[in-house]
Amino acid sequence: MGLFSKDIKNMDDLFVHTLRDIYYAEKQIVKALPEMIEKSSDAQLKQGFQTHLRETENHVKRLEQVFQLAGKKPQGVDCPAIDGIIEEAEDVAGEVEQKSVLDAALIAAAQAVEHYEITRYGTLISWANQLGRKDCVTFLQQNLDEEKATDKKLTAMAEAQVNRKAA
Amino acid sequence: MGLFSKDIKNMDDLFVHTLRDIYYAEKQIVKALPEMIEKSSDAQLKQGFQTHLRETENHVKRLEQVFQLAGKKPQGVDCPAIDGIIEEAEDVAGEVEQKSVLDAALIAAAQAVEHYEITRYGTLISWANQLGRKDCVTFLQQNLDEEKATDKKLTAMAEAQVNRKAA
Repeated sequence: MGLFSKDIKNMDDLFVHTLRDIYYAEKQIVKALPEMIEKSSDAQLKQGFQTHLRETENHVKRLEQVFQLAGKKPQGVDCPAIDGIIEEAEDVAGEVEQKSVLDAALIAAAQAVEHYEITRYGTLISWANQLGRKDCVTFLQQNLDEEKATDKKLTAMAEAQVNRKAA
Repeated sequence: MGLFSKDIKNMDDLFVHTLRDIYYAEKQIVKALPEMIEKSSDAQLKQGFQTHLRETENHVKRLEQVFQLAGKKPQGVDCPAIDGIIEEAEDVAGEVEQKSVLDAALIAAAQAVEHYEITRYGTLISWANQLGRKDCVTFLQQNLDEEKATDKKLTAMAEAQVNRKAA
């Protein structure tokens, strides 16, 4: 981004900027998930994070297809939001003593990540529809549906067992 | 937080830590909203941000009641997540040239903030229920309901007019 010029001139630019933002975010999540898998002790939660790591790798690939449809090279852009969310997850995890409480904290951290992705995909889909790019919507919607499903699974795991064990 | 000790020993501690996190976040949002009001040009959006500023001031007060119920002094804790989300909102807004495109970017930024709050309140309510603190749930649920309503209003404004003007 330029220091003295405003680089987002129109909605197409804003769409591509936000696509680069979520592309960077998905790649950071691919890097962060192995530590969350390692730190979790509940077997179902560990398995859930592993499944979501594979899904996230797939989200990166779908985004690369959206870049291609938009005629742009896949490229990330600094995303202080996801950096902050991941940094906070690591900070809190480092403060928790008991394994069962750590599982509850990991679920909360993962849901903060999911909600960030849900809001960005919701926005991108709305803009792509307005810009007449239904071809892009298809891939973005698949990612959004998987993020929403993951968020719901995490709530179910928390309420069925993890929070009970921790309390 | 201690450098050499783990300060979150149990679920009560994790609950209070996350309460401090959202307390800090709500106060940062109170500080950030006036700039969003000033930058927005769509009259309905400007009005929506003004209404949400008053709601957010009220959320801070409700959180202070939750601290009181939990027998703790209202106190924030560093929250890199909301700092990152707000920093990113300011970065993107600074890059946008056209007013109508800026309105679309401001809505996206505000929805990222809402989703952060939605996930944190969802988690706090789930933990408060598990800890048998229905008294805390009442206040947290009121905040959550208003955040969800704001998120929906922003989507409606974006799709009914702002995105159309911007595209």
